[in-house]
Amino acid sequence: MEFLTSITPAEALALIISFPVGPLREEEVSLEQATARVLATDITAQEDIPPFPRSLVDGYAVRAKDTYGAREGTPAFLQVRGEVLVGEAAEQKVGDGEALYVATGAMMPDGADGTVMVEYTRQAGAAIEVTRTVRRGEHICFRGEDVQKGQVVLEKGRTISPFDLGVLAALGVTRIPVWQQPVVGLISSGNEIIPADEVLEAGKVRDINTHTVSSLVKRQGCLVRFAGIARDTVDDIISRLSALRECDAILLSGGSSKGQSDFMTTAIEGLGGKVLFHGLNIKPGKPTIFAALWEKPVFGLPGHPVSCAMVVLRFVQPILARLKGEMRPGLLRTMAGRLTTNIPSTYGIEEYVRVTVERREGLTPLVTPIFAKSSVISTLSKADGYVVVQEGQEGIEAGVEVEVLPLG
Amino acid sequence: MEFLTSITPAEALALIISFPVGPLREEEVSLEQATARVLATDITAQEDIPPFPRSLVDGYAVRAKDTYGAREGTPAFLQVRGEVLVGEAAEQKVGDGEALYVATGAMMPDGADGTVMVEYTRQAGAAIEVTRTVRRGEHICFRGEDVQKGQVVLEKGRTISPFDLGVLAALGVTRIPVWQQPVVGLISSGNEIIPADEVLEAGKVRDINTHTVSSLVKRQGCLVRFAGIARDTVDDIISRLSALRECDAILLSGGSSKGQSDFMTTAIEGLGGKVLFHGLNIKPGKPTIFAALWEKPVFGLPGHPVSCAMVVLRFVQPILARLKGEMRPGLLRTMAGRLTTNIPSTYGIEEYVRVTVERREGLTPLVTPIFAKSSVISTLSKADGYVVVQEGQEGIEAGVEVEVLPLG
Repeated sequence: MEFLTSITPAEALALIISFPVGPLREEEVSLEQATARVLATDITAQEDIPPFPRSLVDGYAVRAKDTYGAREGTPAFLQVRGEVLVGEAAEQKVGDGEALYVATGAMMPDGADGTVMVEYTRQAGAAIEVTRTVRRGEHICFRGEDVQKGQVVLEKGRTISPFDLGVLAALGVTRIPVWQQPVVGLISSGNEIIPADEVLEAGKVRDINTHTVSSLVKRQGCLVRFAGIARDTVDDIISRLSALRECDAILLSGGSSKGQSDFMTTAIEGLGGKVLFHGLNIKPGKPTIFAALWEKPVFGLPGHPVSCAMVVLRFVQPILARLKGEMRPGLLRTMAGRLTTNIPSTYGIEEYVRVTVERREGLTPLVTPIFAKSSVISTLSKADGYVVVQEGQEGIEAGVEVEVLPLG
Repeated sequence: MEFLTSITPAEALALIISFPVGPLREEEVSLEQATARVLATDITAQEDIPPFPRSLVDGYAVRAKDTYGAREGTPAFLQVRGEVLVGEAAEQKVGDGEALYVATGAMMPDGADGTVMVEYTRQAGAAIEVTRTVRRGEHICFRGEDVQKGQVVLEKGRTISPFDLGVLAALGVTRIPVWQQPVVGLISSGNEIIPADEVLEAGKVRDINTHTVSSLVKRQGCLVRFAGIARDTVDDIISRLSALRECDAILLSGGSSKGQSDFMTTAIEGLGGKVLFHGLNIKPGKPTIFAALWEKPVFGLPGHPVSCAMVVLRFVQPILARLKGEMRPGLLRTMAGRLTTNIPSTYGIEEYVRVTVERREGLTPLVTPIFAKSSVISTLSKADGYVVVQEGQEGIEAGVEVEVLPLG
């Protein structure tokens, strides 16, 4: 037996980032299915939005100059020549001294260059009194003011938001070109692991990682295929890996402690794969394996649930993002807070410390570390986020402002 | 015609919060379906996790006192009596001067009170040399250390995270009691609105709000039923509202500008409902209606897409959260940044200003307002979040630190 070969997290990320994966095949989905999918092409506007100038208020379309100087005591008189119905073409023109009624959203008629809100008018038979000056362009949304024809409105590699959907709908883009969702194969391993719905016998524990990892991976927008719980034999691991050959990435949890890791590395190498690193200078999460098999990324994740989850968040999700074709990730929402307790840490190891955050009105939030072993899943459930203690730091002192990262 | 009756956002939220809705019926889902659902009951542990003391490393289960004073030059000698197989009951005991091999996850045998990592041992025939002192409890996860039997591990009203799933799986809770997902009825209205997949004619625009609102509401964990695009007639609105009678909440977008709002309030009152407020002192989003119909909350949302989205985020989502049974909402992740440009604002109106955020290494992020009309959907798509200008503020000056809220 030999010690794990530990590399730094930066070296690991460099290997992960240089691993040759990219987005999968392109497919089309409907607007209903498009939220959180990744755009496979730039979307170029084929028309202007809005397609015609629209009134933004209920009022009268007027020539602004006809209202110059109008006020309460000295209103402008305009003849109302009719109405532009919402949803109809504006057939009539507005001439000098004239107005047409326009409700919100109605097409502005030719000749008019502003709308006066109905609140600033008084009926006077077939005419209106306008009691304030209308600016040119007032209360109009111009043709193409939102989006201009020919403009790239959404870029390839963007994760589609509810508001992006609105832009797509406005443009009439109802078949959306997106990248296919990566299929992630999962295997749980360990002679002690039983499915969550089975009765516990002495020495056995229930499978946690499959559920946590599957949920994290699905939340990231991937599909999951589960190949069951492998016994600690090379043959069983080989047979389950082979069942996942069509997947775009494979995550094998457990089985990477020193004793068991032999089965896993032997299985990967037996199938013609290559272990790229084995052991990471992080805590929790040290016994992590990263390998190339069938030109696909394969991770051996630590069996301890907290370690396993942290490795997924820090090292697996970046490669899944690339498989998804995500080129413009959203803003990572971190939170700043003041540490209530010292965090001790070992120099040379990057540590991830679960924390709770207490918001205080008008004051910096308080950040309290949760100290617990990496086997203790309930602490992840209680945590509001985590703090990174860099390799070069020997802990962080109470009172220091720290950045809290989200747990997925 | 009369002016809209504008109430303050605080008054509106008070009305919304006092509206008598609560969680729906309870149902059971599998672990695979449980992420992001809301727990309908407290989950009490029926057993300890772990169910037995486990070794956290690959090594030897020992009696700590047998190793006191052991070091490289003066190791302790222990007879190895065998191995506890991972996944099996530990049948043998560890006596004085004895050790049993335990891999990570194996049950600790009786008699042992610590594990020495294999790295700190040397083989010596049937014995080992232990080259360091083992503390009592070292590298053991005790029975119940994660969760103790009888403990409430997850509370009713909690939104289930990937890590909560891990806790449920560990406890063997595979049928999860959750609240049913609220069904939200949607209607789009306006004579100018056509479905996104139809050809535009003069005066028409495509339906944006149905897609944006539907996506926001689904992302919040609700189901959506769409009753189509209503023409601007009381009868059509009545017939579409009636089609959504079984829904838990109804959102009717468009149709709440002054001209059109008459149709909507008349329709709601014609069906026996009651308008609770009509008009909100916010920008964008003023022409908002809130009503009770069939004892259910009904919102008339502004037709302008930005206004509509902001009202959903600020006023609709709180009531949907209550319908979902959410009692312990997650931490709202806001972000602090420095404003690059003055934001002008009107005293007495709460304004929501879309912003972009530029992260800078080691410096406060820069927050830049996007100024555009509320009809311009593309700005929401570009925004990284929004800033609230309080009613009592006349704008915010450049250089001030502001809080950026997430867009959904």
